[in-house]
Amino acid sequence: MRDVVVIGAGLHRYGMFPDKTTVDMGTEAISLALKDAGMAWKDIEAAYCGTVQPGVSGGHAICNKMGYTGLGITIVENASASGSSAFREAYMSVASGQNDVVLAFGVDKLGSQLLAPMVPSQPQPVNAAPPEPAKTQPEPENERVDAKFRKMLPVQYFAGIARHYMEEYGVTREQLGQVSVKSHFNASLNPYAHFRKPCTLEQANNARMVEDPLTVLHCCPMDDGAAAVIVCAQDSAKQFTDKPCPTIAASVNRSTPEDGDFFITLTRQASQEAYRNAGISPADLDLVELHDAFTIEEIMYLEALGLCEAGQGGRLVEDGVTALTGRHPVNASGGLISMGHPVGPTGIGQVAEVLWQMRGECGKRQIARPVNCALTHMVGAGGVCVIHLFKR
Amino acid sequence: MRDVVVIGAGLHRYGMFPDKTTVDMGTEAISLALKDAGMAWKDIEAAYCGTVQPGVSGGHAICNKMGYTGLGITIVENASASGSSAFREAYMSVASGQNDVVLAFGVDKLGSQLLAPMVPSQPQPVNAAPPEPAKTQPEPENERVDAKFRKMLPVQYFAGIARHYMEEYGVTREQLGQVSVKSHFNASLNPYAHFRKPCTLEQANNARMVEDPLTVLHCCPMDDGAAAVIVCAQDSAKQFTDKPCPTIAASVNRSTPEDGDFFITLTRQASQEAYRNAGISPADLDLVELHDAFTIEEIMYLEALGLCEAGQGGRLVEDGVTALTGRHPVNASGGLISMGHPVGPTGIGQVAEVLWQMRGECGKRQIARPVNCALTHMVGAGGVCVIHLFKR
Repeated sequence: MRDVVVIGAGLHRYGMFPDKTTVDMGTEAISLALKDAGMAWKDIEAAYCGTVQPGVSGGHAICNKMGYTGLGITIVENASASGSSAFREAYMSVASGQNDVVLAFGVDKLGSQLLAPMVPSQPQPVNAAPPEPAKTQPEPENERVDAKFRKMLPVQYFAGIARHYMEEYGVTREQLGQVSVKSHFNASLNPYAHFRKPCTLEQANNARMVEDPLTVLHCCPMDDGAAAVIVCAQDSAKQFTDKPCPTIAASVNRSTPEDGDFFITLTRQASQEAYRNAGISPADLDLVELHDAFTIEEIMYLEALGLCEAGQGGRLVEDGVTALTGRHPVNASGGLISMGHPVGPTGIGQVAEVLWQMRGECGKRQIARPVNCALTHMVGAGGVCVIHLFKR
Repeated sequence: MRDVVVIGAGLHRYGMFPDKTTVDMGTEAISLALKDAGMAWKDIEAAYCGTVQPGVSGGHAICNKMGYTGLGITIVENASASGSSAFREAYMSVASGQNDVVLAFGVDKLGSQLLAPMVPSQPQPVNAAPPEPAKTQPEPENERVDAKFRKMLPVQYFAGIARHYMEEYGVTREQLGQVSVKSHFNASLNPYAHFRKPCTLEQANNARMVEDPLTVLHCCPMDDGAAAVIVCAQDSAKQFTDKPCPTIAASVNRSTPEDGDFFITLTRQASQEAYRNAGISPADLDLVELHDAFTIEEIMYLEALGLCEAGQGGRLVEDGVTALTGRHPVNASGGLISMGHPVGPTGIGQVAEVLWQMRGECGKRQIARPVNCALTHMVGAGGVCVIHLFKR
């Protein structure tokens, strides 16, 4: 298996863009990624599109709009990890030797487009409430989640875990709120973020309660958006750019039935496999971009990723270890809560943040220490977890 | 890139199964593939599910039903080529060294389940008409096909090509009908086929006209069904089976905007790339499983695949070259017209036919000559073409 690097990235801002099509957003992100990588559309040999709206999101229409080159296009869906899985397929297509230069992009329009029952019919104002839970949903045959989880909306499930962590490990409302404060602060420095206003701990915890202890500022939005990254055989990178290109050091996709605290178990197993494959340990991580659809997730995954002992995640946040200035910055981009969660693009956007942080191009949200080692993490409905490790 | 072989396959019959779920059909196909490969579910390291109904088709639910092993699951969508693309990703995941043993499966329920506007609301009786064209369809934003093609249903598009071939190259109604007769004959010998009754040339051409010259027996059905194949690193195959295992000699995915006779151009370009990669020529092909949603397609792709000169496809059919007893048997399985077209499974089912024909396990529809070299071909909406070449 040959070495594969990330050579360029481009984003369309996450948020509500009722007047834009997925083709508008997708072509913008791809054009920026090409510019970032120092290459032309004709250099792309294959494209993988991560989306939870296949057909609607128009992966083929977006590529055709970029111009006819005959490249191979494949649509990848893996719930919230769709973008991460598209990136993984792009990586393997280069690692296997099938292609030298491959595009992974993600696009969805979940914020401003009616798609019952996942999203509201009205665009959300900035920092507004997430979609009101629809108490009775149609249950399509073979819905991914098992009967127990199916009855429960994600916010209810994660609020239950948060309460358990409060009782069992003494996690405080302040620690949960601090995840939101940090996330909003980082996003305020990210031009591609949905929410660009910092918030105080008081604002985070006194906002409208969605499901105790998670207020609306503890929950991610559903967004429109697009993200694109280009991967390349390491040997070929120099012909396009002189900038540093992170090497993909591990790529792991694991699944499990949705049962109990499956996201924690799954994250622990997948990350251990990734560390083993890459020959690194959690202590090496200079940046972690993880799935924080709800504040409690940062705390529980800190533990599952091996950055601390069980029960110590809240303390890590409180001590600032996960802040931009800390030893293990988490969600420098603003994460799902504040940068936003357009779903298809989300896992790709994490890789963009890794690339730009490793290159030192993140301006006011640049991590002070050198970023030599980074991890991206997405989980999704159906019991999926996709983790990537990058080395500079 | 290391050598990858096909080690086992299993199918659930294509057709109308209103009482079965996609989990029922998918687990049956996977269980048969495991048995065929001489392995257990725990041996599978990753799974790729081809489907045009992500979420509905329940790729994750099917794998979870097989048992918890933690394997990675990814859903792949690429219109009618979804199964072929899932197979391609499975192949690359082994070729790249990420995994040793990977499952590619396809499942959809398009025949007996209402899914406007693609399928009829009533189950079709065997050999019944395909869905009545809905003259006005909603046009979702960013629909894949361009404006010209969007206004035209597939049967209208292909009937136009058929009329062009009749005028330009002298293709006859009899030659078109013979594709259907051959297809129904082969399917009558295939226990997994939807249509198991042979038809005469008179029946094929006197059936209800859908769009001149294509009668209902010139058109494929939309089906329920499931298909599964297992790919394996060549070095690892011997620990599971002593049977011959076809090597994947080329895997090509190409796309183009939908314009004019794009499927022909695309098939020509993709097949030439595949021949070059595999070091073989069209004359070597002992079996071709191709996308015959409409009879004219076999004739046009014979030419595009380089099996004859332009305009000679009809003659090849008439001369029996594509029959089971001919030099280049086409759609020994019965193809889309007669075996059926469940879409997600279709491209996987083609690979199953290649495996079983290469092993000499096809009973009454076994090709008499040794099958040492085979090609599978799928095209799909959005302008996609996926071709695989296999060597024994």
